[in-house]
Amino acid sequence: MTEIEIGRGKRGRRAYSFDDIAVVPSRRTRDPEEVSVAWQIDAYHFDLPVIGAPMDSVMSPETAIAFGRLGGLPVLDLEGLWTRYEDPAPLLAEIAALGPESATSRMQEIYAEEIKPELISARLKQIRDAGITVAGALSPQRTQEHWKTVVDAGVDLFVIRGTTVSAEHVSGRAEPLNLKRFIYELDVPVIVGGAASYTAALHLMRTGAAGVLVGFGGGAAHTTRLTLGIHAPMASAIADVAAARRDYMDESGGRYVHVIADGGMGRSGEIIKAVACGADAVMLGAALARATEAPGRGYHWGPEAHHQQLPRGERVADGALGSLEEILLGPGRVADGTTNLIGALKRAMATTGYSDLKEFQRVEVVVAPYQRS
Amino acid sequence: MTEIEIGRGKRGRRAYSFDDIAVVPSRRTRDPEEVSVAWQIDAYHFDLPVIGAPMDSVMSPETAIAFGRLGGLPVLDLEGLWTRYEDPAPLLAEIAALGPESATSRMQEIYAEEIKPELISARLKQIRDAGITVAGALSPQRTQEHWKTVVDAGVDLFVIRGTTVSAEHVSGRAEPLNLKRFIYELDVPVIVGGAASYTAALHLMRTGAAGVLVGFGGGAAHTTRLTLGIHAPMASAIADVAAARRDYMDESGGRYVHVIADGGMGRSGEIIKAVACGADAVMLGAALARATEAPGRGYHWGPEAHHQQLPRGERVADGALGSLEEILLGPGRVADGTTNLIGALKRAMATTGYSDLKEFQRVEVVVAPYQRS
Amino acid sequence: MTEIEIGRGKRGRRAYSFDDIAVVPSRRTRDPEEVSVAWQIDAYHFDLPVIGAPMDSVMSPETAIAFGRLGGLPVLDLEGLWTRYEDPAPLLAEIAALGPESATSRMQEIYAEEIKPELISARLKQIRDAGITVAGALSPQRTQEHWKTVVDAGVDLFVIRGTTVSAEHVSGRAEPLNLKRFIYELDVPVIVGGAASYTAALHLMRTGAAGVLVGFGGGAAHTTRLTLGIHAPMASAIADVAAARRDYMDESGGRYVHVIADGGMGRSGEIIKAVACGADAVMLGAALARATEAPGRGYHWGPEAHHQQLPRGERVADGALGSLEEILLGPGRVADGTTNLIGALKRAMATTGYSDLKEFQRVEVVVAPYQRS
Amino acid sequence: MTEIEIGRGKRGRRAYSFDDIAVVPSRRTRDPEEVSVAWQIDAYHFDLPVIGAPMDSVMSPETAIAFGRLGGLPVLDLEGLWTRYEDPAPLLAEIAALGPESATSRMQEIYAEEIKPELISARLKQIRDAGITVAGALSPQRTQEHWKTVVDAGVDLFVIRGTTVSAEHVSGRAEPLNLKRFIYELDVPVIVGGAASYTAALHLMRTGAAGVLVGFGGGAAHTTRLTLGIHAPMASAIADVAAARRDYMDESGGRYVHVIADGGMGRSGEIIKAVACGADAVMLGAALARATEAPGRGYHWGPEAHHQQLPRGERVADGALGSLEEILLGPGRVADGTTNLIGALKRAMATTGYSDLKEFQRVEVVVAPYQRS
Repeated sequence: MTEIEIGRGKRGRRAYSFDDIAVVPSRRTRDPEEVSVAWQIDAYHFDLPVIGAPMDSVMSPETAIAFGRLGGLPVLDLEGLWTRYEDPAPLLAEIAALGPESATSRMQEIYAEEIKPELISARLKQIRDAGITVAGALSPQRTQEHWKTVVDAGVDLFVIRGTTVSAEHVSGRAEPLNLKRFIYELDVPVIVGGAASYTAALHLMRTGAAGVLVGFGGGAAHTTRLTLGIHAPMASAIADVAAARRDYMDESGGRYVHVIADGGMGRSGEIIKAVACGADAVMLGAALARATEAPGRGYHWGPEAHHQQLPRGERVADGALGSLEEILLGPGRVADGTTNLIGALKRAMATTGYSDLKEFQRVEVVVAPYQRS
Repeated sequence: MTEIEIGRGKRGRRAYSFDDIAVVPSRRTRDPEEVSVAWQIDAYHFDLPVIGAPMDSVMSPETAIAFGRLGGLPVLDLEGLWTRYEDPAPLLAEIAALGPESATSRMQEIYAEEIKPELISARLKQIRDAGITVAGALSPQRTQEHWKTVVDAGVDLFVIRGTTVSAEHVSGRAEPLNLKRFIYELDVPVIVGGAASYTAALHLMRTGAAGVLVGFGGGAAHTTRLTLGIHAPMASAIADVAAARRDYMDESGGRYVHVIADGGMGRSGEIIKAVACGADAVMLGAALARATEAPGRGYHWGPEAHHQQLPRGERVADGALGSLEEILLGPGRVADGTTNLIGALKRAMATTGYSDLKEFQRVEVVVAPYQRS
Repeated sequence: MTEIEIGRGKRGRRAYSFDDIAVVPSRRTRDPEEVSVAWQIDAYHFDLPVIGAPMDSVMSPETAIAFGRLGGLPVLDLEGLWTRYEDPAPLLAEIAALGPESATSRMQEIYAEEIKPELISARLKQIRDAGITVAGALSPQRTQEHWKTVVDAGVDLFVIRGTTVSAEHVSGRAEPLNLKRFIYELDVPVIVGGAASYTAALHLMRTGAAGVLVGFGGGAAHTTRLTLGIHAPMASAIADVAAARRDYMDESGGRYVHVIADGGMGRSGEIIKAVACGADAVMLGAALARATEAPGRGYHWGPEAHHQQLPRGERVADGALGSLEEILLGPGRVADGTTNLIGALKRAMATTGYSDLKEFQRVEVVVAPYQRS
Repeated sequence: MTEIEIGRGKRGRRAYSFDDIAVVPSRRTRDPEEVSVAWQIDAYHFDLPVIGAPMDSVMSPETAIAFGRLGGLPVLDLEGLWTRYEDPAPLLAEIAALGPESATSRMQEIYAEEIKPELISARLKQIRDAGITVAGALSPQRTQEHWKTVVDAGVDLFVIRGTTVSAEHVSGRAEPLNLKRFIYELDVPVIVGGAASYTAALHLMRTGAAGVLVGFGGGAAHTTRLTLGIHAPMASAIADVAAARRDYMDESGGRYVHVIADGGMGRSGEIIKAVACGADAVMLGAALARATEAPGRGYHWGPEAHHQQLPRGERVADGALGSLEEILLGPGRVADGTTNLIGALKRAMATTGYSDLKEFQRVEVVVAPYQRS
């Protein structure tokens, strides 16, 4: 790991984004039909290695059900509009109609409404009743307050998601969440993150998490690089966390923690690069928000967009491009990597001669910075 | 070959595109008139080291004949409109008139028509009757189905062209094409590709191919980097394959396999850089699609643009710029590298003091990334 | 310190700008409320590590008072409109109304007016009377002429600011300012700069300065790279000067000279990166000129913009974005790093697990060039 | 000199453009008034280290005289309109009025007119009669045909200028120009180029040239990178040729050959970087074509723009910005490096503590690629 001298008093590693790298073909090819993209975490099997991001513009109870039926793992945001409002439909329509100058401040108002435990229970029940794997997400700040409601409502997978989640949170005000004890005592597998470095991820793995989300505001809707100066280029972050997975497997005598890329994958090419860098699965936001069924109605935003004191994300207009099925499974009607995401993944694996995701993590890549023209 | 650490779990080489490099003058100069750009493959001699790409927007039987008379090697796409329709002219007109929103889906329909063996024979006969070297291209998927028709119709050179063609294709469904046996048994020299790495190309050379196409969707009309995350920066790819040619020549006791750059050469500067990196000849698509005689009528597209499940190319509007002769041989009327391609090649060779293509492969280059303003 | 060979006759170091780097999270997190951003220089304590730049578009006596009350250190330009004109308000209004074609030449005329010592005294008295720490800035060229007026008027901190200020100025025409003797004899702590390299800063530290300004025309309003070919990428400059601070502390037996980043910090992310590279505090121009209270009325310019012979800065229109309080302390109403600068700084520190500025100077950074899209 | 592996079969050096580097201040500063930018070549002294490029848009006999009086060295193109037409004024007006689509082809026609020896004599006489140092330029192709006319007309300096001029031109058709013998026999000092590498320049120095032009179509009006794939990034080229100057001085026992940067210096910052890399003087085209007196009337073009077979330059519209005096000596009225070029050079030298051009060639530079926003 070579470090660069930024100046006499500071050194830093060179880190790479998806745009900096590309997959390269090898000497073998394969039929796309013979490629498997199946993924299993804990006892749960999925036809697609895709998790629907817990964001109001991406996942409603209805889209969660539709997405689960297509083979993915949907995660509902349990701090979003669906647990704050009995009927969020008018608010989603209002957000889609806001002008750019008032979007941030109006969203701050809308999201100031309280979270209602009974709505958490109701929304999760709706998904469970449809026969879909049930997963809900809380931020680390709210986990202590609401986790019991969530578990009582019945979830298969529990997601703790923030821009950065560490195994060691320092707080003088209240008893902070002790992730290790929490996960140990919980009877449900936990996916936790974001983490963006080898060390941070290794510590999260040691808490007993089933999966680690890799990323830090890398997505289309975030502005954390402008506002916080923080940025975790995804190719490097995934490759670092994949190394932590390998080392933790040694250290733990064989426990395999899933590496889930989270952010910056708006097009199929980026999903493919995420796996090539070591991801087991991908959590998609913007890519799914483009579905006609998506609750965002052509808009996409994350929880950072309506932070009360320090908004650091935008409401992004991406339009509604096609059905969720077209976006995931095709057939593609445009050639820009926004439809038939899974078909593209399979073809990339076939073209480079690989037959399953775990193998494809070893595909050759080159560093070749991309100039979008 | 130094590798870069992308993250702890992944390494990759730095790869270079044409835009990353430039040719530099040396201490000697020469008269452009005394430079030879002649090229010979197998028994066939060409005044120009230029192959017309087997694409419907570039090569019709008529343009193939015109292009052959100017000194190049035309290749007809035997899976294009000319072998699917008795009279493709109305369809070419329709494609040129399509709006951008419907172009992909309408082309998917048009290309859903079956390939007709009798049209393969008829088109190749038309070219042969004009006294031009006859070459036709099939994809590896269709080669087994149609190769006998092609050979019976009489071709001088047989081209097998896909985005990636490997010497070792794995398929559980049918007997895959065994390239080595196929080429060995065929009585016609074969040009095959794309290949984008040393190893892939070396294996193709060992099949007995007369030439290897270097590239992977590098052209103006491809979006494989966005859709598949796959990219083979051309300068590095050609230099790698040129090294495979040298090593294969050693290993085979002197068999010289031609390295043919295929993709990303829309302007004369890029053709020149391709040779500078080691190419013996170039296969041109977009650059020739700008001819007034080109069947694309100012538009350009590749087979990827109308893939039924996963389109990964666009129909690009480049306009009709001048006659095929002006584009190849000048005189130039614009100064942007789109006309008098051969004049530019000769001048670049003269300015750097070289007298033939084989020598010019040794010209000095620098790495100096280009910021298009 | 590796040097790059530019050509056989010239070598140079690679230098990095804020855009080239990013802060990365570590394995620990912290509550933003428990982070301290307090700063102390000499006997003066400030709640915020922010100095208001001595520029007419940023600091009037009134905004200096308001800025001081919010916790920052305001510095008044003693060679600006406020010491040249009894009432600069009409001129500020005129500058804001100038068309782009005449802005430079009209500003050259306006700033040709003489500096009036009695106005220096009056402006500083106005700030002192408000109970705010009093600081005024002179250029090195004018320091000898006006310093006594400034000291007699009573200042707490004396700022000598130019694009480049060296400890060793060579002049054959007059006795040049001997910084070392001047600072030694003055009874007021001095902040001096810009300096942009280890050596230049070390020499300034040896003059006895309390703080060194790091930068050279890096700001939004400067065009020194175009006009002078001179550029000091800020990340490298700060890291170099921070190393000089450390070495000077050794050499001087413990004297701590403050490193103050000056330029190129228009957004909170850049302020955060400045501290991450080693800055103790930041001097802000453009970021504060966006306040509704700012005298520039939505415009921003520096002294370079009206140089009589060689203007090398522009009058930049940034608009009036919100109150000074919103810009510094929030709540943010936009998500682009221009409001709640201090909230962003605190959050970045908390997210990476640090509790004070001095610690945060050790945060991990990566090199990851940023392509603004 | 580290080489980069582009691919297994090709290596190349990294080369740097002006945009890739920046001058950095040192620990010393100086008064701009005490800086000297005087330059002397052979017996000729100039107040400014600036040569007016032999281009029709830059130098007419009248502007040559005006430019010489301001202290520079004007060079008249002896193959331009002034030696082809008795009165080129109507043609210059016509070129300025041409639409972009017809500019190249109409200029090809205009420049098809023959060169008239009697006009060569008359134009040079006009300059001589004004008491200005007389210099005229021929291309290497025309030097044998016209040199005697030039010498008989009386020139102080003889310039041989092409995109690439080598000491060893290979031609089978006619006796090529033997530069070494030609320069030896000529009684006038010769400036010759472009050369863009150490070796090429060293060979030119050995011909006895007084100065070497460094460059290859680097200017605003050239498109050689697009058309020929050839590019000589200026910072590296100058630094290489400066090293050749040093080594040739050793080898020759002390003969100093002037290094003259030619191309890519449209703004003062680039002139400054050229000297910082080792140039003794600069040859300016576009920068001077912006003068109201310039014959191009706001347009600029080089001989490449009207090449009969292979135009590889554009007619660029830069507008008329100010008088020649304002452009060279100021006062500046804009802040973008296009006016007061010499004032900027002096200030850059003063700010970094240098007092003459030869010293300033040693100024520290950094590599810090510039993203024009």
